[in-house]
Amino acid sequence: MQALVEAARRKNSVLVAGLDPIPSGFPEELRTLPEAEATLVFCQGILEAVEPYVAAIKLQAAYFERLGPVGMEIYAGLIEASSNLGLPAIADVKRGDIGPVAAAYAEAHLGVYGATCVTVNPYMGEDTILPFLEEARRQAPGGGIFVLLATSNPSASEVQESTEPPLFEVIARMISGLGRSSGDYPDAGAVVGATRPEVGGRARELLPETLFLSPGYGAQGGDASGIRPLLDRNGGGVLVNSSRSILYAYERSASNYKDAAREAASKARDELRLW
Amino acid sequence: MQALVEAARRKNSVLVAGLDPIPSGFPEELRTLPEAEATLVFCQGILEAVEPYVAAIKLQAAYFERLGPVGMEIYAGLIEASSNLGLPAIADVKRGDIGPVAAAYAEAHLGVYGATCVTVNPYMGEDTILPFLEEARRQAPGGGIFVLLATSNPSASEVQESTEPPLFEVIARMISGLGRSSGDYPDAGAVVGATRPEVGGRARELLPETLFLSPGYGAQGGDASGIRPLLDRNGGGVLVNSSRSILYAYERSASNYKDAAREAASKARDELRLW
Repeated sequence: MQALVEAARRKNSVLVAGLDPIPSGFPEELRTLPEAEATLVFCQGILEAVEPYVAAIKLQAAYFERLGPVGMEIYAGLIEASSNLGLPAIADVKRGDIGPVAAAYAEAHLGVYGATCVTVNPYMGEDTILPFLEEARRQAPGGGIFVLLATSNPSASEVQESTEPPLFEVIARMISGLGRSSGDYPDAGAVVGATRPEVGGRARELLPETLFLSPGYGAQGGDASGIRPLLDRNGGGVLVNSSRSILYAYERSASNYKDAAREAASKARDELRLW
Repeated sequence: MQALVEAARRKNSVLVAGLDPIPSGFPEELRTLPEAEATLVFCQGILEAVEPYVAAIKLQAAYFERLGPVGMEIYAGLIEASSNLGLPAIADVKRGDIGPVAAAYAEAHLGVYGATCVTVNPYMGEDTILPFLEEARRQAPGGGIFVLLATSNPSASEVQESTEPPLFEVIARMISGLGRSSGDYPDAGAVVGATRPEVGGRARELLPETLFLSPGYGAQGGDASGIRPLLDRNGGGVLVNSSRSILYAYERSASNYKDAAREAASKARDELRLW
């Protein structure tokens, strides 16, 4: 995770900008282009605009996958463009499968597509997580994985909190046993939403040393106060993702989409001076 | 799910052939080709060989994803080729994410790539499952989804059975509430491995009407007796996937890979005359 931590320190920012390119949200001037081309132009514009204010870029794989094979070309190009700007790329793929299949997914996103980090779904247990970690250790020095722990969507608690012990505690213990220290943090991080602070606080108790990636800031209803319970004993240990409220900031602004994204990223960074 | 059920009746087979193309397992004559081309030739050969004996084809997305964008072209081509042979295609993607992202994944695999069914990971709860169901209802008449319930990998029980109530029971109740009848079975099916019969039996108790997709037959250690507890009160309700023991049957045979796959599929179909 050291690539993320160093970028965060260099930029003085814990903000991660999420690329969730939704064509119906693109500004007027891009809507005449074919979807794939518009997606590429839009994302490149956002990337350059937010670069000074963010520690990393998170690519939401689904929005590239829905464009077919050409979408994966764009996904590859944007990971490369991030890397050229010195920005670690988090492939938000939430993949998970039996061992050899997980290894193929890990090879795809950390190897072929060259992301620094990848998000992983733990429903199938430890042997779905290990191949991602092993591939990160081989292919992505300074990178690692973020395992879904407590997500920010409305129905997450039905699965993650409705048993005894709550499932997120089972997963937290699993993450704790799998990570290997690789600088300031273990290479197995966790995705913990900012929308349920009591769950976030408990996740932090169970994982005092772990780097959290927290989605849900801005458009999904989380705010900076929701993030406070996630902080570690040094007041750090959290990267905060914001997607829609940066990407589509122009809708609530008189500026063009790039300037609006730049202003939104700058403002979010300042609100999130947590570390 | 009616497309699967009708194909199973027409072929008198509950067997699903899984396309898990692993280049190191390809026969000698394909190893001189570039990986992507070898993958295409190998999978097309398997598809034609097994077609008379199987109810459906299951494509393991990871093995196409690891080839980069060209892998997704091959994935698209094989779904189309299955369809041209009258075989429903199950996209084994195990995706899951917040609502709009799940909708983008559903659009990708059921819409753009044109699969009949898709596998879904329920870790994020009901609102990650619904967009897949809605897309199936719109785009894939006769299709549906299979939600991961009790998987066949060694560490599955750490997550799926270690709480009270066991997580797989929570997910079973969720599946039961989401499916809508679409012929013989609801359109929300479940993935239930053949490796833990007591869990499979309990899953069947909780989901008496649901179509199960059961992996793990053959190479993963399940056998026909492991499937018996999964059957419904009519002795049906289960499709059984076999991947490696069909694809790589030539390794234990004097035949070429297509003939060996054909023989293995024919034999598995006969062993699995369950319905």
